[in-house]
Amino acid sequence: MSSLPRIVIVGAGFGGLTAARALDGLAADITVVDRRNFHLFQPLLYQVATAGLNPSDVAWPVRGILSRQRNTRVLLGEVTAIDTGSREVALADGRTLPYDWLILATGATHTYFGNDHWERHAPGLKRVDDATLIRRRLLLALEHAENSRDPAERRKLMSFAIVGAGPTGVELAGAIAELSKKVLIRDFRAIDPRQVRVVLVEGADRVLLSFPPELSAFALSELQKKGVEVMLNTRVTGCDGDGLRFGDGTVLSAATVLWAAGVAASPAARWLGAPADRAGRVQVQPDLSVPGQPQVFVIGDTAAIVQDGKQVPGVAPAAKQQGQHVARIIRAALAGKKSPGPFRYRDFGNLATIGRHSAVIDFGFIRIKGLLAWWLWGVAHVYFLIGARNRMLVATQWFFNYLSYTRAARLIVGADPGAKEP
Amino acid sequence: MSSLPRIVIVGAGFGGLTAARALDGLAADITVVDRRNFHLFQPLLYQVATAGLNPSDVAWPVRGILSRQRNTRVLLGEVTAIDTGSREVALADGRTLPYDWLILATGATHTYFGNDHWERHAPGLKRVDDATLIRRRLLLALEHAENSRDPAERRKLMSFAIVGAGPTGVELAGAIAELSKKVLIRDFRAIDPRQVRVVLVEGADRVLLSFPPELSAFALSELQKKGVEVMLNTRVTGCDGDGLRFGDGTVLSAATVLWAAGVAASPAARWLGAPADRAGRVQVQPDLSVPGQPQVFVIGDTAAIVQDGKQVPGVAPAAKQQGQHVARIIRAALAGKKSPGPFRYRDFGNLATIGRHSAVIDFGFIRIKGLLAWWLWGVAHVYFLIGARNRMLVATQWFFNYLSYTRAARLIVGADPGAKEP
Repeated sequence: MSSLPRIVIVGAGFGGLTAARALDGLAADITVVDRRNFHLFQPLLYQVATAGLNPSDVAWPVRGILSRQRNTRVLLGEVTAIDTGSREVALADGRTLPYDWLILATGATHTYFGNDHWERHAPGLKRVDDATLIRRRLLLALEHAENSRDPAERRKLMSFAIVGAGPTGVELAGAIAELSKKVLIRDFRAIDPRQVRVVLVEGADRVLLSFPPELSAFALSELQKKGVEVMLNTRVTGCDGDGLRFGDGTVLSAATVLWAAGVAASPAARWLGAPADRAGRVQVQPDLSVPGQPQVFVIGDTAAIVQDGKQVPGVAPAAKQQGQHVARIIRAALAGKKSPGPFRYRDFGNLATIGRHSAVIDFGFIRIKGLLAWWLWGVAHVYFLIGARNRMLVATQWFFNYLSYTRAARLIVGADPGAKEP
Repeated sequence: MSSLPRIVIVGAGFGGLTAARALDGLAADITVVDRRNFHLFQPLLYQVATAGLNPSDVAWPVRGILSRQRNTRVLLGEVTAIDTGSREVALADGRTLPYDWLILATGATHTYFGNDHWERHAPGLKRVDDATLIRRRLLLALEHAENSRDPAERRKLMSFAIVGAGPTGVELAGAIAELSKKVLIRDFRAIDPRQVRVVLVEGADRVLLSFPPELSAFALSELQKKGVEVMLNTRVTGCDGDGLRFGDGTVLSAATVLWAAGVAASPAARWLGAPADRAGRVQVQPDLSVPGQPQVFVIGDTAAIVQDGKQVPGVAPAAKQQGQHVARIIRAALAGKKSPGPFRYRDFGNLATIGRHSAVIDFGFIRIKGLLAWWLWGVAHVYFLIGARNRMLVATQWFFNYLSYTRAARLIVGADPGAKEP
């Protein structure tokens, strides 16, 4: 094995996993490292947070995905540094992984724009543990409201604020409104879940900023129909256990605040000593390699790359295409062939769902909204799940959720390590 | 509402929930209190621990189950004391619940026979959080073994001990053996999961002591065929992060120890100042009421009742029958009718599964073992799950697990608040 070229892939998200699978069969010694033992289908994570799906419906063990790929091993480990001189990746437990080729696909996390102390009051949604924590807070807030006799406290417990009206914020707001106003209506005796306030707060002048204004306007009106209050042009200046404070001095009393604003790349640029943009993404070469290190690549949400004057978006299809591109470059190099050259992002469309029967899709040449978009959204998401089992289980659960307006996954388990419980 | 008789049911397990449902439609003000917001189908919890099923496949929100029962409300709360003089249940958050009729169905937990410090090294399996913790430890032990270069440490990490060979211990041992020796075989590169040691430790001279000796002998041979090492007549005298110490002075090096021995009732007897047996169960009257308190009942694993010279077993069917019986007594009393009198347990059979294609069933008049018993076990367990959705999802997952020998639910999430991670 030791004479084979060593390829280390850090991160088993869409980018890293696609690269690994595209290297199947190659005469190489490939290692995939991730802090987690599973690949997460992040586009459906908000459904885990809102009790529609189980964690294991949207996540799949990396070992299982790669078990038949004999040139690849999977390591559970956390990268702490990279020595580009000696070509070694250092892990938190002291081990080092030497590499000839390195692919960094470590993703992104949310940022609180310098206010990291807001995190315990306003969790973001990137990991499975985030989703179960958010689910726990949503459901417990209503339990505590049911038990409370103080009207002001009850109102606060029944108010949910979401900061950021990108796709995740819109999906969360729509799903929470439906959960409280449709699913839970018969469950309580002292409170009426239809009186839950769901407030979506956005700094820009429209929701879904990455979509055409026409679809933003549609999404806004759909959210309002579902009972979501949308605050546009609103800057958050404070966040604590009582709720949010805004730039104009007003406050929103809400026991549960969720964070869907701001993206910061993982520390790959720092590990590499590479140039980064403001969000911390590595400014890669047109072929996705790191300047001065032709055998080190950065892909997915961790890479900053401009195409036709526009930033390639931090979405799953871009990460997957980049993983494939890098695999092609490595294959060509090892075969002594000509490099495929610069990466070209092919945009197959942008989609977001607002809730039951409502979604928006921007194919560029055509825009679809409403019921048809929602069905396309559902079919596409089931299709892109890994494995027949996940597809069947998600379809089955959606079918039951759809027919019965109940959601079985609304279990409150585990403990909340963060903020005080209301 | 205040003129209606107030019925408080503590615990939403098999006993409490059955009692609540059997009181549907009664002119009464019924409150169900539980520390958790869900009813747990405990007989399948070991499958959550061994990555075969999801928590929400075997648990169902209590509010959902009782949402259409208008005379009943559900409270999330923890009972701390009962004042039988003023007839009030005290909750941890300071609230009190007055009652006219009280049903205590608070279940049981495992006991370490005075060695409570063993718990952090050897978790038991009673709650959903126990199951996810056990799953996490099982999977992480193999991940760490894959990363270890020390043969002794690797062997320790690949050794799993289960203390107690009742139905839960047998099911866990069989499932862990199958998980490692069948499901995970292609997943690792440095270790061979088929070399995992699964050791089942029992103080008595046979496994499944509550079954006829013939079925114990069958279960023993089936376990051994699956590669489980069974140690009978073995007393545990020590338990720490390195493994187990036995009465004869020998030690078993095992990084993961699970506890399936010893049952202790919840503190209901202490709350009531009622007579209890050695396991802490309330010694109830033949009609399940507490001596001297005809309107207070104790049912399920918290009650000690002897019938035909034998203890009524702490199993789900007994708890459900007791819940029904108490509901009948209350209905009769409120209608001014004659009490139905003493409780009679009807034993419909006792069953335990050892793993794929192997189970034992004791119907009393007939004993079944092997493949047929396994199919009956599976059908019965799917049948007794609450709701069409759970039945369909569990059947679907079993079908996929059965066909593909993979288990998708093997995600390592959350943190381990207990013992050091290996």
